[in-house]
Amino acid sequence: MISKHQPVKPQQTAPEGADPGLKMAHPASEKIYIQGSRPDIQVPMRKISVSPTMQNGVSTPNTPVIVYDPAGPYTDPQATIDIRKGLAPIRAVWIDERGDTEALPGLTSAYGRSRETDPSLDGLRMTGSRRPLKAKPGANVSQMHYARKGIITPEMEFVAIRENQKMEAMADLLEQHPGESFGASIPKVITPEFVRDEIARGRAIIPANINHPEVEPMAIGRNFLVKINSNIGNSAITSTIGEEVEKMVWSIRWGADTVMDLSTGPNIHETREWIIRNSPVPIGTVPIYQALEKVDGKPEELTWELFRDTLIEQAEQGVDYFTIHAGVRLAYVPLTAKRLAGIVSRGGAIMAKWCLAHHKENFLYTNFEETCEIMKAYDVSFSLGDGLRPGALADANDAAQFGELETLGELTKIAWKNDVQTMIEGPGHVPMQLIKENMDKQIKECDEAPFYTLGPLTTDIAPGYDHITSGIGAAMIGWYGCAMLCYVTPKEHLGLPNREDVKTGVITYKIAAHAADLAKGHPGAQARDNALSKARFEFRWEDQFNLSLDPETAVAFHDATLPGESAKTAHFCSMCGPAFCSMKITQEVRDFAEANGMSEEDALKAGMDAKSDEFKKDGLPLYLEA
Amino acid sequence: MISKHQPVKPQQTAPEGADPGLKMAHPASEKIYIQGSRPDIQVPMRKISVSPTMQNGVSTPNTPVIVYDPAGPYTDPQATIDIRKGLAPIRAVWIDERGDTEALPGLTSAYGRSRETDPSLDGLRMTGSRRPLKAKPGANVSQMHYARKGIITPEMEFVAIRENQKMEAMADLLEQHPGESFGASIPKVITPEFVRDEIARGRAIIPANINHPEVEPMAIGRNFLVKINSNIGNSAITSTIGEEVEKMVWSIRWGADTVMDLSTGPNIHETREWIIRNSPVPIGTVPIYQALEKVDGKPEELTWELFRDTLIEQAEQGVDYFTIHAGVRLAYVPLTAKRLAGIVSRGGAIMAKWCLAHHKENFLYTNFEETCEIMKAYDVSFSLGDGLRPGALADANDAAQFGELETLGELTKIAWKNDVQTMIEGPGHVPMQLIKENMDKQIKECDEAPFYTLGPLTTDIAPGYDHITSGIGAAMIGWYGCAMLCYVTPKEHLGLPNREDVKTGVITYKIAAHAADLAKGHPGAQARDNALSKARFEFRWEDQFNLSLDPETAVAFHDATLPGESAKTAHFCSMCGPAFCSMKITQEVRDFAEANGMSEEDALKAGMDAKSDEFKKDGLPLYLEA
Repeated sequence: MISKHQPVKPQQTAPEGADPGLKMAHPASEKIYIQGSRPDIQVPMRKISVSPTMQNGVSTPNTPVIVYDPAGPYTDPQATIDIRKGLAPIRAVWIDERGDTEALPGLTSAYGRSRETDPSLDGLRMTGSRRPLKAKPGANVSQMHYARKGIITPEMEFVAIRENQKMEAMADLLEQHPGESFGASIPKVITPEFVRDEIARGRAIIPANINHPEVEPMAIGRNFLVKINSNIGNSAITSTIGEEVEKMVWSIRWGADTVMDLSTGPNIHETREWIIRNSPVPIGTVPIYQALEKVDGKPEELTWELFRDTLIEQAEQGVDYFTIHAGVRLAYVPLTAKRLAGIVSRGGAIMAKWCLAHHKENFLYTNFEETCEIMKAYDVSFSLGDGLRPGALADANDAAQFGELETLGELTKIAWKNDVQTMIEGPGHVPMQLIKENMDKQIKECDEAPFYTLGPLTTDIAPGYDHITSGIGAAMIGWYGCAMLCYVTPKEHLGLPNREDVKTGVITYKIAAHAADLAKGHPGAQARDNALSKARFEFRWEDQFNLSLDPETAVAFHDATLPGESAKTAHFCSMCGPAFCSMKITQEVRDFAEANGMSEEDALKAGMDAKSDEFKKDGLPLYLEA
Repeated sequence: MISKHQPVKPQQTAPEGADPGLKMAHPASEKIYIQGSRPDIQVPMRKISVSPTMQNGVSTPNTPVIVYDPAGPYTDPQATIDIRKGLAPIRAVWIDERGDTEALPGLTSAYGRSRETDPSLDGLRMTGSRRPLKAKPGANVSQMHYARKGIITPEMEFVAIRENQKMEAMADLLEQHPGESFGASIPKVITPEFVRDEIARGRAIIPANINHPEVEPMAIGRNFLVKINSNIGNSAITSTIGEEVEKMVWSIRWGADTVMDLSTGPNIHETREWIIRNSPVPIGTVPIYQALEKVDGKPEELTWELFRDTLIEQAEQGVDYFTIHAGVRLAYVPLTAKRLAGIVSRGGAIMAKWCLAHHKENFLYTNFEETCEIMKAYDVSFSLGDGLRPGALADANDAAQFGELETLGELTKIAWKNDVQTMIEGPGHVPMQLIKENMDKQIKECDEAPFYTLGPLTTDIAPGYDHITSGIGAAMIGWYGCAMLCYVTPKEHLGLPNREDVKTGVITYKIAAHAADLAKGHPGAQARDNALSKARFEFRWEDQFNLSLDPETAVAFHDATLPGESAKTAHFCSMCGPAFCSMKITQEVRDFAEANGMSEEDALKAGMDAKSDEFKKDGLPLYLEA
């Protein structure tokens, strides 16, 4: 299978340890933990300190900005991290207390056992050993199952605190500068009961496999903050285990809420183990990729038995959600033949080929009920794959795509009947005017199960900039109700993303998700914008950098024009220079209005003739002082 | 006025000549000229050649893609360019033929004459001399005036061909892969009559000063392709004349449709002359910036007389549109005092300060009728400035902003009464859910005059990425009906853009404008997307690069993973590797359907059992051949 075109042979080495550069707080940021109803519920947040406002010699403190923080212990200087051991299993007690799981004597998966006993892989093993957990016979350990029984799990409470903190901490700034009207369905305070009810309803999921106790619980649903996913994975072409772990840590540092491991190269079982054990965010996979590796890349040789073994293998490692292309029904495959870009989903293409080769219905569809049994035994969430998503604008919203979406709606109901948490994947390449139809149809067909889209890209003509073509669509569909946005990097369609590409993709998608939170009126979303704008207005340059999504880039861009510390305290910026600053003039307008004790309406009506000379005299020196 | 913080003193040197790197065609691109009803109407277009589709050993040619091209002669290897002389005055005969202008004996502006006779500036002069044109007494030389008299000018015909060509050349590809329904108000073929009627109605403008005969006419209006503007200009901090000309050429190379010269430093009169004489796109300015320089940066010393002289100075140089902040009325200024970010428009802040200092109504407002007289004597278009636009999300759509917009509506009617072409500037910082209200209110208040917005930025938290935060808003407002989008570079709020930043800003805005054209259903807009997607599907890598907005970056990103020529002909890409390609599998699905003579629906119903073995046998070798 190795082609002559393959320039880099993947190295098969275990990582030496975390890159010290990755274990580092953001500037002016402190990791804080909010305790829940029990001492072992410790919800991490990032507190960004800001300097006081200085005006006319008076210093007025500004409220620190507290933000949602998926970065895990890697941004906590107090944390001890050894990636050969993995993170602390913070959920282990919660899972154990529920009394509905059992530690298995060993791995269930035949493939997993074969890897475990292969001495040639000894160099790739993590330290310590771990026995996989599974639901006791007949038990269902999904968060949806608990929610439907009325139980609030520690995971749900964790999520409530996490989603909620942002707005409480920002209450006073919000009061000064109220944002727009809040969305009707999002409560002003998110309670554990609200989280439970959303999970029970199927409108949100908490991807949290019982074999991933290291995860810091988070929710995906349209009544919560919009989340983003970043993809990592060694392909046949390049990259190593250590690089993949580093990419995961790097992704969450910049704000990825979940990470999908899309590895297709060698040692994907071992790579996945390292990633999961070190990941505080849910890990998703596309199990069919690994299944295909096991049959030497021949889709027609795939079988349900082999696939089932792969699901169990990965479930016992702790994968939190599986992309499963069960909606690629035989009936839909010929609908793609006249498309401009055919089938562009790898999983979709594999299943389409299998269906045609055997002229049988997709075995993922026919075995869906049995799959549910696996999902609920480990609490793996479904991410029902859109194997027939459009790969070009011309193919958007066509019969193949929407046919599959209808099937995903059917499957959602089957999953829910089994109390299995479910989200739905979506496109792809869709022009702006067709995006809303996607969201509306998904809500209708899938009865409000969370939607998880790739972009969508709003034009095909900008390879090299597809983070932007898709960021536009992502922001819009997030506003319309999409719960999670799968990032796209600048290298999409062209090559494999490097470290900088991953960062650019994550930041672009944080922008899209945050713009969507603002547009949806999520309580508290605007607090960070207001704090940054206030810092900008007051020339608190360091605060402006520190409050931004990427302080490093903000500082570097500033310094490219005006290097040196003095420029960071200057009351002007490089765009207009020292003598031409509109912000300064505004401050004079404001000072004038205040000094004269006028309200905004009064100022006009009172007639300011008498004051204008005074303003002229006092205003100018201030204006020229820089 | 020079501060100690100023790190770079602007050099006062004339450019040596165009950077040879700027005079260069894009790869696989040829400059073609479409002749109109007379031989001197030669409309430039860019023809991108593509290679044939190779399938089963059969070669099928693909239609070249013809795209709208604002880059001017700089991308025509046949053109002779000497930037010391300027471009050929292609409109000179058209203007002369109308017989309503006269060449003045010399400059009207006192300031202009003082610069002309200052020997210390001799080193900054262009070669040749030029007598300014002006309308004969009582005449109105605006395109709107001609249109309202029922005249189709060569400029209007030029625009019709330019806007139209794209869809005609693409007719066959469009037929194969029809896009979405066309917008109701955009005709399938844009005729000169349609252009005339849109200009007469005020729904579009053709910014084309009679003193800018070098301009290649273009239209701004929501029933035409969405346009983008790039800003250049030396500030007090940095840059030289040669750099500014180069930035203009660089901007249009990547797709800027107009360029605003926002210079505030020394020699802005001479810099502007170089830019206009070498620019094939309309040049806009904010005359109040220069007026302020003339009073040493003291807004309260500005007078109508000084401003009028500046308008005439710039009109006689050939500026095509003026941003004039005539809507910043005294009454609105106090409304900004409690804003989070006050007044962020430089022009707005200057006028606000003037109003308060004198406690008088804005002199741009009170002298608007007289300004119209100047505009129509040279055909300068109004770009009515939004001096009170919001500078933070918290200030969006407030009383100050919308009050000013209502005044701009009043002024539009006065301009139209004078047959003066007019567009309206808009925000700024606006969350997604408030964008449409801006567009709808602008259409209502300004009776469909073209809207020209800065972004808007959809969040404030990403300095360093404001091309993206604003690109999202720009695409949306373009879809809603905005006619021109003013670009934002990654350095916005932080520093001055360099060459790469300008390119990133322009490409981002081309994406936004094109995504809007697609969403509006502009005829032919989807042709380039379809051609690129077809090339992508068929692994025509070079075509994919060449059809993209930025071929250089696309190639570089591809080569970062798979360098070398062989990878550019490979039927796989680095994302999935040679043995795992969904595109290839799709092709097999398609081959199978074709080989068996089945339509898409038939394929399913016919029962494919008999064929499945054949597929299994034939399909695999193809799949593994790479």
